[in-house]
Amino acid sequence: MSINAAIEELSTLLGQRLSRSKSDLDQHGTSETHFALTPPDAVAYPANTEEVSAIVKICARHHCPVVGFGAGTSLEGQTLAVQGGVVVDFRDMAAVLHVGAEDMDVTVQPGITREVLNEELRATGLMFPVDPGANASIGGMASTRASGTTAVRYGTMRDNVLGLEVVLADGRIIQTGTRARKSSAGYDLTALFVGAEGTLGLITALTLRLHGQPEAVTSAVCAFDDIEAAVSAVQMTIQMGIPMARIEFVDAATVAAVNAYSKMDLPLCPHLLIEFNGSDSAVEEQATLFGEVVEEFGAKGFEWAKKPEERKALWTMRHHAYWAIVQSRQGCKALVTDICVPISNLAEAVEQTRADIAASPIEGPILGHVGDGNFHAILLFDEANEAEVQAANDLSHRMVERALALGGTATGEHGIGLGKKKYMQAEHGAGWDVMGDIKQALDPQNLMNPGKLVRGN
Amino acid sequence: MSINAAIEELSTLLGQRLSRSKSDLDQHGTSETHFALTPPDAVAYPANTEEVSAIVKICARHHCPVVGFGAGTSLEGQTLAVQGGVVVDFRDMAAVLHVGAEDMDVTVQPGITREVLNEELRATGLMFPVDPGANASIGGMASTRASGTTAVRYGTMRDNVLGLEVVLADGRIIQTGTRARKSSAGYDLTALFVGAEGTLGLITALTLRLHGQPEAVTSAVCAFDDIEAAVSAVQMTIQMGIPMARIEFVDAATVAAVNAYSKMDLPLCPHLLIEFNGSDSAVEEQATLFGEVVEEFGAKGFEWAKKPEERKALWTMRHHAYWAIVQSRQGCKALVTDICVPISNLAEAVEQTRADIAASPIEGPILGHVGDGNFHAILLFDEANEAEVQAANDLSHRMVERALALGGTATGEHGIGLGKKKYMQAEHGAGWDVMGDIKQALDPQNLMNPGKLVRGN
Repeated sequence: MSINAAIEELSTLLGQRLSRSKSDLDQHGTSETHFALTPPDAVAYPANTEEVSAIVKICARHHCPVVGFGAGTSLEGQTLAVQGGVVVDFRDMAAVLHVGAEDMDVTVQPGITREVLNEELRATGLMFPVDPGANASIGGMASTRASGTTAVRYGTMRDNVLGLEVVLADGRIIQTGTRARKSSAGYDLTALFVGAEGTLGLITALTLRLHGQPEAVTSAVCAFDDIEAAVSAVQMTIQMGIPMARIEFVDAATVAAVNAYSKMDLPLCPHLLIEFNGSDSAVEEQATLFGEVVEEFGAKGFEWAKKPEERKALWTMRHHAYWAIVQSRQGCKALVTDICVPISNLAEAVEQTRADIAASPIEGPILGHVGDGNFHAILLFDEANEAEVQAANDLSHRMVERALALGGTATGEHGIGLGKKKYMQAEHGAGWDVMGDIKQALDPQNLMNPGKLVRGN
Repeated sequence: MSINAAIEELSTLLGQRLSRSKSDLDQHGTSETHFALTPPDAVAYPANTEEVSAIVKICARHHCPVVGFGAGTSLEGQTLAVQGGVVVDFRDMAAVLHVGAEDMDVTVQPGITREVLNEELRATGLMFPVDPGANASIGGMASTRASGTTAVRYGTMRDNVLGLEVVLADGRIIQTGTRARKSSAGYDLTALFVGAEGTLGLITALTLRLHGQPEAVTSAVCAFDDIEAAVSAVQMTIQMGIPMARIEFVDAATVAAVNAYSKMDLPLCPHLLIEFNGSDSAVEEQATLFGEVVEEFGAKGFEWAKKPEERKALWTMRHHAYWAIVQSRQGCKALVTDICVPISNLAEAVEQTRADIAASPIEGPILGHVGDGNFHAILLFDEANEAEVQAANDLSHRMVERALALGGTATGEHGIGLGKKKYMQAEHGAGWDVMGDIKQALDPQNLMNPGKLVRGN
């Protein structure tokens, strides 16, 4: 079999760094969410770009699928080798290659996680702000075009990757972008590979835009009577140009889960969590203005967390919300939705979703990045209960339909993977065919993460 | 001949809106800079997207080249029909289609110019900030990935286009992106068409990100002893996170030209022009901090232009700098360079360029967007003087080599067109082949703006 022939050659190339142990295969066949175990045929641990290129060349010769793997935190089964083949795990390519403090950029290997990167940057006064919650790898974050709580201020991976090194489907190594802040030199290949989920090539290095660590940070939490008031307050804040670093929404059901999990006692109603970054006086001014805005919309219990430990508790609570929700019902699985709509339609989208979930037999707390119009319902179901599985899938399906009808997208930040592929035609129309043409041009054998993102298998 | 057959059919479709008058052909065969007159075979003035699609289908059937045209302000001959064919002028597709004040976005047709757009937005409190100086069309700005004086704060066209409607090379119409602020749904087709210079399709509508008109604006100008001091002051300002709306550099030769043209009397040394946007107190704070920074670097004559008319004079002077320089020598042509380097290498790049120009037989004032590391030398030469033509070309060539050696790009914001195509191989290596593969996949007949951007003709 061709996959076996590839594995034999890879084994000669990599020795112990090609693994076929059951535990390794199972670990790389698992997803964070509801997808079934899908072990690959082998896991490769390359040490450098040349080895990645050699791996891909071997796989290309033997028609063996290649799937990239960072920290395994993706939520749509992006790293599952659904056609078998080799998972390339970037565990051993996790170094910081160059810190350009003067240029506020850094070049890293794809396996480094965002927390390790920020730890390494601490002494420079700089930070990499994109924060999807999970301690994801930077290569994975780029591949799924991740964002998270800070996108409202600092943008998504699209906005923070300056350039890439990529191993193409035939093993050629290319550089995209430069270390200059901008360029008009031809097609934006950097943007093409960011969000491509490894279907066009494997990212082997990334140059990232850094930002200064803010002089001052304040966070706050406040409660609202209903979702609409909370969203309206956010809209006005954005329109006034008050530069929020984070603005997060949690519904009453999420509050109940995090209260239990993080031993907090927030009132059981919708909340906004907010953070401002800047100079002392700027943060003070922003906080005051924001306080006036939310008061207009009937916010209650408005409280500033000025101390670092209070702030940390607040954002740890937010980052643990997913786990808090999943653990609120023992033994359940989670279907995580990820729609994003124009902000003017956000209150409607959240309210309709909430009502839809309330009328269903399952629970689905809602939380999201309200400054971007992006929110998640964490739909909890018992795998063994067919009615619940069906209800979760139906709710998720209707959320996407709702998002598309409201001018939005099936996925704000989690990507397509296996879970959202069925919506690509509805969202992109003939644009999906164009994606297929690009895939065909750059990966004619369909070996790079096959079965994902584009039409066909 | 196939082009004639296409024109005959187009004439039936468009009637008077297909022009073959000499004045029209010449006007569309002219460039702003040094490229030779290259009239197309015909100029089409479509009224809507369906007509653009019909035009492209006719051209595809008859193998007739198609070149998009906005305001004709591009600097690298992007709109010249070097293989003949039809120029599609978007003059009659210049409407605002939808203002989403709540979402801070707007959907426009490609022919609208940025000044008209901002005029139409004035009452909404919103603005479209990308400002390349010239009153370019929005479609053209997207196609060349334009930026200009405000990119340091608001980003380039890459950052401010949310979605597009595009007519592909076979006449199909696609929508890219959504009105949501972000999406992880597949390949970033929006980013692919932004900067593609019409080689992959014609942009027929654009949804743009808007920004709030700032409550307060202050501008300032100050003089430095040398380029290095000016650049160092900018670097420190950026590192301190002081959010500049514009930060522009002009050298002594540029100052001499604008003094003569705009009747000003700035001292003949390098200057920085700066602008801050924000709330009254934020602008005040930023201005004070900036004043302290530039003082450290020996700035002289630091002066705030708080009154609107003073500010306007300052930026009008900057916007007219190109014309001031061109008119400083009667009857000359201009070769406009556009390199962009990492900011840590900017002083070196400017200084080497200045010395190189000084040692040449021609003049070449330097000015640029120093916050992005992007600068232009306006190389003035007499077309009839072969030694001067050669000197201009040689200087431009060495600037690009210098930029690439310093980790930068051949073009920060003007694009490839005809002038920079020869550097694509050096800048992108195998990445240029990937661009060619994409072009081949989406425009297999090579009819969309042929001869530009990708390898071959």
